[in-house]
Amino acid sequence: MPLSTDIRDVSEIDRFEASADVIVVGLGCAGASAAMEASDTGADVLVVERAGGGGGTSANSGGLIYLGGGTPVQEAAGFHDTPEELYKFLMAASSPAPDEAKIRLFSEGSVEHFHWLEAQGVPFKRSFYPEPSMESETDDCLVFSGGEDAAPYKDIARPAARAHKPQTLGKAGPFFMQCMLEAVERRPLRVELNVRADALLRDSAGRVAGLVGRRAGTEVAFRARAGVVLSAGGFAMNEEMVARYVPQLALAASKNATEGDDGRGIRMGAAAGGALLRMDQAEVALATTIPNRLARGIFVNDRGQRFINEDTYYGHIGIEALFRQRGRVWMLLDEALYERNFIGQEPFHVADDIAEIETEAGFASGVLQATVAQYNRDAERGEDPLFGKRPEFLVPLRNPPYALLDCRAADGPYSGLTAGGLATSADGEVLDIEGAPIPGLYAAGRTAALFCGRGYAGSGISLADGTFFGRRAGRHAAQKR
Amino acid sequence: MPLSTDIRDVSEIDRFEASADVIVVGLGCAGASAAMEASDTGADVLVVERAGGGGGTSANSGGLIYLGGGTPVQEAAGFHDTPEELYKFLMAASSPAPDEAKIRLFSEGSVEHFHWLEAQGVPFKRSFYPEPSMESETDDCLVFSGGEDAAPYKDIARPAARAHKPQTLGKAGPFFMQCMLEAVERRPLRVELNVRADALLRDSAGRVAGLVGRRAGTEVAFRARAGVVLSAGGFAMNEEMVARYVPQLALAASKNATEGDDGRGIRMGAAAGGALLRMDQAEVALATTIPNRLARGIFVNDRGQRFINEDTYYGHIGIEALFRQRGRVWMLLDEALYERNFIGQEPFHVADDIAEIETEAGFASGVLQATVAQYNRDAERGEDPLFGKRPEFLVPLRNPPYALLDCRAADGPYSGLTAGGLATSADGEVLDIEGAPIPGLYAAGRTAALFCGRGYAGSGISLADGTFFGRRAGRHAAQKR
Repeated sequence: MPLSTDIRDVSEIDRFEASADVIVVGLGCAGASAAMEASDTGADVLVVERAGGGGGTSANSGGLIYLGGGTPVQEAAGFHDTPEELYKFLMAASSPAPDEAKIRLFSEGSVEHFHWLEAQGVPFKRSFYPEPSMESETDDCLVFSGGEDAAPYKDIARPAARAHKPQTLGKAGPFFMQCMLEAVERRPLRVELNVRADALLRDSAGRVAGLVGRRAGTEVAFRARAGVVLSAGGFAMNEEMVARYVPQLALAASKNATEGDDGRGIRMGAAAGGALLRMDQAEVALATTIPNRLARGIFVNDRGQRFINEDTYYGHIGIEALFRQRGRVWMLLDEALYERNFIGQEPFHVADDIAEIETEAGFASGVLQATVAQYNRDAERGEDPLFGKRPEFLVPLRNPPYALLDCRAADGPYSGLTAGGLATSADGEVLDIEGAPIPGLYAAGRTAALFCGRGYAGSGISLADGTFFGRRAGRHAAQKR
Repeated sequence: MPLSTDIRDVSEIDRFEASADVIVVGLGCAGASAAMEASDTGADVLVVERAGGGGGTSANSGGLIYLGGGTPVQEAAGFHDTPEELYKFLMAASSPAPDEAKIRLFSEGSVEHFHWLEAQGVPFKRSFYPEPSMESETDDCLVFSGGEDAAPYKDIARPAARAHKPQTLGKAGPFFMQCMLEAVERRPLRVELNVRADALLRDSAGRVAGLVGRRAGTEVAFRARAGVVLSAGGFAMNEEMVARYVPQLALAASKNATEGDDGRGIRMGAAAGGALLRMDQAEVALATTIPNRLARGIFVNDRGQRFINEDTYYGHIGIEALFRQRGRVWMLLDEALYERNFIGQEPFHVADDIAEIETEAGFASGVLQATVAQYNRDAERGEDPLFGKRPEFLVPLRNPPYALLDCRAADGPYSGLTAGGLATSADGEVLDIEGAPIPGLYAAGRTAALFCGRGYAGSGISLADGTFFGRRAGRHAAQKR
């Protein structure tokens, strides 16, 4: 009895339910983009989706798409962005060891990709929304979402807002995927719903030649003449894989994921010989500083030390807090700055002086007082020599009572998703341990390792990855027919 | 033309140079242990080694072997250790997500393993050497090597010195492997030198059935009837793999590795379907605090903040510094404490007051002064509320001139080796992505992921891993004949 995701020999299959040039597994944004591009390249395309309808985790997202280099929205909103500035930002935000080749392709193709999304029927208002990091509550489009205008990135690349939200009120993931699925429906391609792909099939020449899956408990097989694209999500909902590869993420009480993110696509690809890449990486959100004026408070670790400029993207904060500070961090605010934040954190301690906060929260005596004293001295001069927080966020904390928010991972304020997955070429080909493509096999979206590198460059980078490199995978697979 | 490490079909091979029940690839400590145990279990064993003689990276090491639970040396030296205390230490030092099952086996089998090593002819003097973390200059045996008696571990498990050095003066790796190789020679097993294994062979049932390699440029093939053990080292000397999996290690100017650590064993196993585990992990030594009395100085990061108790194992310091502090750290000493350290670091700045050091080294004004003032206040009371450094290391820094040592990674003081590799069962079976054993395939030593988990528990853990789990792999493979 082979393991459920073990690759199987195509000669074992007696009957194929259907065949196609290109089979796409999963109908989130990556699968939709791969399927459309493969179809437009002339391939006969079949999509298999385990749920009763398309959308996947993309439809459960905020809907931000990270694009730049001078899109029409950026131009209209007064941001002069270029491919080079986008490239510089992504290289810096994805260090160490960013994927230079993919970042270059993405930076140069980003404006074209924007037009392609619009051509599919995804509308973008020509407007900017000043509250950063997440989707607007209005139908406005453009937001800063990666700390582009905060230290250290503001001095590395010219700051430009780059997260583009499809035009709808509030959270845009459902609307975005509705547009994408309607675009899929306009193509002459087939979609098989309620089929969970289980394993790939390989022919005698070693080429991936289809897959077997299950529909209502019954095994079904599909033949792929040119290639299979795995775009079946990440592994955030697979507890065992999370524990094995990125155990810190287990501390994030909430996952930016749906049931399908069980790592099945990744495991199918690995069973076919695909190498796994950056499996220890994750997106981690600590949304304490939403609304962003709360960034005037200070984050401290369990030694009472500041560790980041609080005015940056909450994803950079989340990764720093969870991985480098071991999820043991707090935020200190005073009466003048305090307000309830987006994730509804209640003050853990409230006291009239910092010494009392130290005692109550169990800090070593004096450490928080020293940190606040120094911060206040610097803030008074409008400077943050440690982390470069922008002057408009530098307000001395001098108005008791003081409030300490518990941002420790154990308390549950983190959410996240997995960023590692199958190693792929710039054309989405799944690569083996030596970097050689596995004939007939492609991956896109969170089934592949995040294209740009380590960390998580900014909100919207995953939908950008899925759609941009999903298209490339679909096109390349179609050309093999 | 298949890639050099691609698995090949055994039916392609016309002629086998030799055959054996068990073939062991690589004759470092893991391969020697696997080969001996397989032989002692009754198997006909063949070892292939790429160099002109055995030894591998083990012979280039300090020779410490991490063992505990109450060895004769521990008893003689007055340490009352138990398997449970060893278990508690390894679980804590290998977090998050330690490998509980392997740690349990190792803890319970450690004393027996000590006796086995002695029975092979590896002598251990019944003595303790008080300078921790690395091998003695004398022929003394036992040292603290994982910060067992420092915070936080001293409060988690009863402190016991556990690194055992074979009885010889100074660095013991060469002597240790000489003993082991002599023990190998006493067995009825064959060793083929100057053969670099290139790829595994698989039979029609999917079982690993041998390997092909090269001797002086000519391909040679060997047939394995029961199994192949890959014990061919790690990947520290493969720049491309380091850049892909653990790019931070590229900043370590020196590698605790030899030429053979090019990842070939790992890649051969991966090409056979083996899953890779903890590829982002490494051993990283920052030996600034050798001799250990230098731990009376303070480490600071680029914000002038302390980040660890300086009196712990230099490997814990190295990992913290390189991964969490991004390799941007310094050590501050005063005239009373200064001496030249083991790695010969020269002071980067010397000045009569801390403010001047701040200016010269480019710290934000006041940060180092605040850190030193607080440290001195606490040290005067014999306390380190931030990190729990032991009282005997707490000396106020009050004797100018002050010296700042540059411990930034770019300056080259780090050395390291890779800790990730093939996923294995407790019996050394290589596991696929679903955790199922690949028939006939084993891995041990640095070709496998370090047995205990993340981080690097202490000096000597790698030789312990290689020998202890190497034996298990050899025995299990032999039982399959």
